[in-house]
Amino acid sequence: MATDTFCQIVNGELIAHEVWRDDEVVAFLDHRPVFKGHVLVIPTRHVDTLLDLPEELIQPLFTLARRIAAAMTPALGAEGTFVAMNNVVSQSVPHLHVHVVPRSKGDGLRGFFWPRTRYAAGEEAEHAARLRAALSAAAG
Amino acid sequence: MATDTFCQIVNGELIAHEVWRDDEVVAFLDHRPVFKGHVLVIPTRHVDTLLDLPEELIQPLFTLARRIAAAMTPALGAEGTFVAMNNVVSQSVPHLHVHVVPRSKGDGLRGFFWPRTRYAAGEEAEHAARLRAALSAAAG
Repeated sequence: MATDTFCQIVNGELIAHEVWRDDEVVAFLDHRPVFKGHVLVIPTRHVDTLLDLPEELIQPLFTLARRIAAAMTPALGAEGTFVAMNNVVSQSVPHLHVHVVPRSKGDGLRGFFWPRTRYAAGEEAEHAARLRAALSAAAG
Repeated sequence: MATDTFCQIVNGELIAHEVWRDDEVVAFLDHRPVFKGHVLVIPTRHVDTLLDLPEELIQPLFTLARRIAAAMTPALGAEGTFVAMNNVVSQSVPHLHVHVVPRSKGDGLRGFFWPRTRYAAGEEAEHAARLRAALSAAAG
């Protein structure tokens, strides 16, 4: 038994408006789109987040996301796209999904329109150093 | 002469707080972060958007984005991440960049918090059909 909605779409328990399917990846319409034509691209294998995606599925997943983004201009007249994923926080379904959203100038979304913050003196170097250390530890 | 800010970072004309650099990809702090530790991952080769990214750079770019996202927990105490790119619309610098933003529950961002819309009867099938047709046309 599939435990999440997207596994149910993969195995056919739940029907979605699919735009692509192969052994590794499926793409279908988000039924509550940010804009009409908003697609979700998922791996058929259950993984919770991007961090859990097997190395060999990075290429198929993002190649399909790119193909979908490219298709949005001829298919929908999109002028641009927003491609995004939430990992854990704000992630509505615990099965990795890449949002591909058609965009047009003046569509009312400003993408990264959240208030930006500023670093205090020294804070930027400190954050970079922490990230470099964690990357080194992970590689080690 | 580099024509955009991110090419200038790649070639050393402009200094950023870098967290990773190799021949194919560079990662550095966004100097006006959504949250402190917000990283931008870019290909060293100039490409405007995801659509222009050569096939062979998909794996290096998104593998690094994933590694950065994974590092945010030990480095910054992040509970999750937001990984996103704007193509053309809302894209501030015309050099492909993947945002990797550390997230915590209750941080005030709700990710996809934009108003969602609904499909009228038949519209969802029609949008899916248009996208499938464009994908088929692109596949040749």
